[in-house]
Amino acid sequence: MLVVMQSHATEEQVRAVCQRIESLGYKALPVPGAGRTAVCITGNSGPVDIGSLEAMAGVVECIPVSKPYKLVGRDLKPENSVVRVPTPSGDVTFGGKAVGIVAGPCAVETREQAFTIAERIRAAGARLFRGGAYKPRTSPYAFQGLGEEGLKILAAVRDKFGLGIITEAVDNESLDLVEKYADVIQIGARNMQNFSLLKRAGHARKPVLLKRGMSATLDELLMAAEYIMSEGNYNVILCERGVRTFADHTRNTLDLSLVPAVQRLSHLPIVVDPSHGTGRRNKVLPLSRAAIAVGADGILVEVHHDPSKALSDGPQSILPDEFDQLMRESRAIAAVLGRTLN
Amino acid sequence: MLVVMQSHATEEQVRAVCQRIESLGYKALPVPGAGRTAVCITGNSGPVDIGSLEAMAGVVECIPVSKPYKLVGRDLKPENSVVRVPTPSGDVTFGGKAVGIVAGPCAVETREQAFTIAERIRAAGARLFRGGAYKPRTSPYAFQGLGEEGLKILAAVRDKFGLGIITEAVDNESLDLVEKYADVIQIGARNMQNFSLLKRAGHARKPVLLKRGMSATLDELLMAAEYIMSEGNYNVILCERGVRTFADHTRNTLDLSLVPAVQRLSHLPIVVDPSHGTGRRNKVLPLSRAAIAVGADGILVEVHHDPSKALSDGPQSILPDEFDQLMRESRAIAAVLGRTLN
Amino acid sequence: MLVVMQSHATEEQVRAVCQRIESLGYKALPVPGAGRTAVCITGNSGPVDIGSLEAMAGVVECIPVSKPYKLVGRDLKPENSVVRVPTPSGDVTFGGKAVGIVAGPCAVETREQAFTIAERIRAAGARLFRGGAYKPRTSPYAFQGLGEEGLKILAAVRDKFGLGIITEAVDNESLDLVEKYADVIQIGARNMQNFSLLKRAGHARKPVLLKRGMSATLDELLMAAEYIMSEGNYNVILCERGVRTFADHTRNTLDLSLVPAVQRLSHLPIVVDPSHGTGRRNKVLPLSRAAIAVGADGILVEVHHDPSKALSDGPQSILPDEFDQLMRESRAIAAVLGRTLN
Amino acid sequence: MLVVMQSHATEEQVRAVCQRIESLGYKALPVPGAGRTAVCITGNSGPVDIGSLEAMAGVVECIPVSKPYKLVGRDLKPENSVVRVPTPSGDVTFGGKAVGIVAGPCAVETREQAFTIAERIRAAGARLFRGGAYKPRTSPYAFQGLGEEGLKILAAVRDKFGLGIITEAVDNESLDLVEKYADVIQIGARNMQNFSLLKRAGHARKPVLLKRGMSATLDELLMAAEYIMSEGNYNVILCERGVRTFADHTRNTLDLSLVPAVQRLSHLPIVVDPSHGTGRRNKVLPLSRAAIAVGADGILVEVHHDPSKALSDGPQSILPDEFDQLMRESRAIAAVLGRTLN
Repeated sequence: MLVVMQSHATEEQVRAVCQRIESLGYKALPVPGAGRTAVCITGNSGPVDIGSLEAMAGVVECIPVSKPYKLVGRDLKPENSVVRVPTPSGDVTFGGKAVGIVAGPCAVETREQAFTIAERIRAAGARLFRGGAYKPRTSPYAFQGLGEEGLKILAAVRDKFGLGIITEAVDNESLDLVEKYADVIQIGARNMQNFSLLKRAGHARKPVLLKRGMSATLDELLMAAEYIMSEGNYNVILCERGVRTFADHTRNTLDLSLVPAVQRLSHLPIVVDPSHGTGRRNKVLPLSRAAIAVGADGILVEVHHDPSKALSDGPQSILPDEFDQLMRESRAIAAVLGRTLN
Repeated sequence: MLVVMQSHATEEQVRAVCQRIESLGYKALPVPGAGRTAVCITGNSGPVDIGSLEAMAGVVECIPVSKPYKLVGRDLKPENSVVRVPTPSGDVTFGGKAVGIVAGPCAVETREQAFTIAERIRAAGARLFRGGAYKPRTSPYAFQGLGEEGLKILAAVRDKFGLGIITEAVDNESLDLVEKYADVIQIGARNMQNFSLLKRAGHARKPVLLKRGMSATLDELLMAAEYIMSEGNYNVILCERGVRTFADHTRNTLDLSLVPAVQRLSHLPIVVDPSHGTGRRNKVLPLSRAAIAVGADGILVEVHHDPSKALSDGPQSILPDEFDQLMRESRAIAAVLGRTLN
Repeated sequence: MLVVMQSHATEEQVRAVCQRIESLGYKALPVPGAGRTAVCITGNSGPVDIGSLEAMAGVVECIPVSKPYKLVGRDLKPENSVVRVPTPSGDVTFGGKAVGIVAGPCAVETREQAFTIAERIRAAGARLFRGGAYKPRTSPYAFQGLGEEGLKILAAVRDKFGLGIITEAVDNESLDLVEKYADVIQIGARNMQNFSLLKRAGHARKPVLLKRGMSATLDELLMAAEYIMSEGNYNVILCERGVRTFADHTRNTLDLSLVPAVQRLSHLPIVVDPSHGTGRRNKVLPLSRAAIAVGADGILVEVHHDPSKALSDGPQSILPDEFDQLMRESRAIAAVLGRTLN
Repeated sequence: MLVVMQSHATEEQVRAVCQRIESLGYKALPVPGAGRTAVCITGNSGPVDIGSLEAMAGVVECIPVSKPYKLVGRDLKPENSVVRVPTPSGDVTFGGKAVGIVAGPCAVETREQAFTIAERIRAAGARLFRGGAYKPRTSPYAFQGLGEEGLKILAAVRDKFGLGIITEAVDNESLDLVEKYADVIQIGARNMQNFSLLKRAGHARKPVLLKRGMSATLDELLMAAEYIMSEGNYNVILCERGVRTFADHTRNTLDLSLVPAVQRLSHLPIVVDPSHGTGRRNKVLPLSRAAIAVGADGILVEVHHDPSKALSDGPQSILPDEFDQLMRESRAIAAVLGRTLN
């Protein structure tokens, strides 16, 4: 932590800051600069929670130097974490050499719909199926998902097609059920800072796929993962799904630079959702290729056999034939990076 | 709803869109324009959920014309709603002629801290006390609030100083307790789209103060209020608290234009939080004046007698003396608009 | 400047950084922290341009401590600058006790239009007239302004109504003419980082009103003013006119917190343009009041007697009657802050 | 154009809007909807400039349906434009099957520096060299480029290494010189809406590379290109270089979805600058791969043999060895899309 003083700060003000720092059990080291003085804090064994210093007379700002996270960081664990998802057709991994492919409809609508899509996805070579049973919708009057009935359909998809299941939990109650029926528990963007839900996910015995909030910084995403890990669940997969900006040609702005940024700071795997990340069917294929090329550990893609009749997010779902092409091109690009699909 | 066709769309494509619209029970009216055709949808008795049209061949985009909300809108209720908060020293109202003032520390820390601040706030003329017992913190290692112990301190503040109490609930469990101890239930920015929590708040018998999410549009804020109202609780107060932008001179960018924008579309009262909205103590007073001047129905201000020792958000808390000045200036500006403080 | 090292940085890497710093003529002071080392740079007589350090092995980031501007800053000149604009009816000042009011149409369209509006503005008590002769328009096919013909109409407005004139220059050629005909040279948001134009404005002998770019940070705005001042023109007025964000209820998001932020760091006056800042007629009056209340040194308002026929920006122009009300309310709010209008 | 009326709009208000539309020479078609009426405008032969309608009584908003651009759009020219840049070693094309690679230092510093880098770039297989002779810098005290001296060095690079030259013009004067010495004229992000400069570029007889502004929408970028084309220069290459958002892990947020979005609406080629787009050396390689994978028609990359001593933007320049790897991986990914490098 560095405390920057005003250029007109008096010696007493600098001294008061140093005394406060030392009263908190740290060491204070004043460093005179070009016109203004800064005070370095040392002797701390972790992040310093002294925002209050910023309110002292003569202080311009406090600049944190150490990062606030521990368990998610490479400082603690330099090598990549590999999150393993068991499926009836073998383990799918995130964070290793293979790139994980997850596909399926936005929402589970009927058994027929789910089976039709699952069959095509399995045939294309994917082994993880996504589909919402609990849908966080902006409007209370929009389709909210089938609930446990949807989870049962997903379980039937697993049994019939050998696909692992990823589906979203929106509160503690639904998380209990999702943990029971699914293979990976998804925490959606709107709940990235629902700390109560994160803690509950930290007690789950299934891997958690954590989506970046619509305006979350990298640090906030990592801290949300830290919430889960600090409760004991180390199987966390991060997910970039687009952020909110002024740009209006896509529903969100997909921030692919997050992938190498996460990989530099954290050992956790990071995947990309180009469907929500663009909100436009005709951009899913090019951005999926880009996600593989940037080095993502996986992608989540919405596929629907009849998007114009989908109960939610039809405009961003691709057709099964397009998914076939996506798999072919993704496999070829992964090979350039020395990776395979799984 | 207006469906815009590509300029090269064929007649068959236009006809297919019209047929789909009519199969959904609406009327379709093709309107030829400069080079491209648009299809207007009429005969609908409410918002049309036909995003799927956007996926049809020849369609550029679907432009919604009607708004998706009902209960929050002035179409249904043209006159202002006045939300009444009973306190031991009389009702405080939001949405009427009087401007509601809410003040207190970010977090309840100790009985002494709460009492010291409450005494000063009451003396300055405010009648509503804020203070967090449950704190949503970015880090799992930061102070998370005193929980029910904090709520008991708040209840003691009400008894001793005659102040009404506003405090945040972060999940269904804490909402049960907040409803029991407090006079207004706050839903924080991070939970604005925690729909499970919004529905629970819709069953509460206390007013709800709903904060705008960090990157929420006006429509999304109104829809979040619609969630609460659609469950039966009509006593909703909206709150602008700053949004996330590229600007780095404040922690958030306070969007005061939201106040007249809400007032044009909705009958609900709208208040402003200049403390979180700026994150800097030296900006709270000027932005509080601006909030009153723009026409807000109230303000929420963080006050602490010793901000440099505050356990959270010290840098944005103002001192009791500054709060006295804030009350004086706010009262004078409210008078210019023909309003009083309460 | 603080150079933060990786937690796994070797001693040699730290030493190499220190050597580089000293080879640049500064002093290096390594400060061991919680797990990672930072190197403070001292002995510099101004901002350090050593971004290249960030590329060295073992370095995480370089954090600047000193600010890059000189002439605009309060470190050099602690007291407020007062910019004086001579008009036929006496000087108008920005930065002193009086708040400067500037009003007029978006674009000068005809002599009749300009005179009609000028008469109403003068009658309402304003003494500065704005109106564009050169209009930077997004489309090459939109009305681009009357050019020098428009400047002549503005000069006639000055003669007939005793109003000072503010109008925009868009390139070096138009700046020559604007300097000749007008009293204040406006640099628009799109040109805030047109450094060639800023330098030319730095040689002008008229005050410059510099608008914040659509996504400019506070530092960038101050640096743009520094460009003008570094060429010798110290009469610079800054202007907040809204920034670009995801919010869609206004055309831009007016960032009123910029006013106290500028006033803390710089001695230059800062005014607000609520017309471009919101883009909506019905928000101009409330945001004008808020701008005065937040402490702005002036406001720029678009007024048109027949906005529905305006050649540009009609939807954000207020009517002369609304301007009368704006003047009344602004005067009353200014009085609360101990200020007058001029 | 669609004019949406308020739900409480009177019949007279709707009639007044229709009359105004017809007085402007168009046809008005009122369409009753769910509670509110909309008026469609037809009979127009191009975009309607009637923003003034929005100011009429009873009107909520005007929604444009047709796009404002002509020359840049696929409506006018459905097939891709191929921009051809002649170099001593043969033409380089943008917009065809081959992907154009541009590389070089941020700024030309010395003949030795330019030659050293050019040699490596040529050896790696690139045929276009970039390097700034005129640098738009945020600070007036930072290195501003060598000017014409730098252009002469670039011309020498062309002669010696057979590389075509791309360099930035910042005003009309420098554009004259850049047109004389270089093969492609670059217009930087800060000048994307410097309409005076765009018009001048429209008269140049060399291709123009136009960078997206830091907060420019897709429509604004296309309209800026329209300015150039409307003056007669049809050889325009668009460039995504990152936009400004709240995200702080990169200097800008690279918006790769712009590539397919441009390709859908416009026939112009679109390239990507991952160096400015991320601002971090360690993200240039992954984002370059992603740019090729998303379908960009080219990339611009900053390369420096000694980034820690670069006079500008050192932290985002990659080393010649890294550029070799970039070329190899880009070539392999381009092949997946059936493209080559040139």
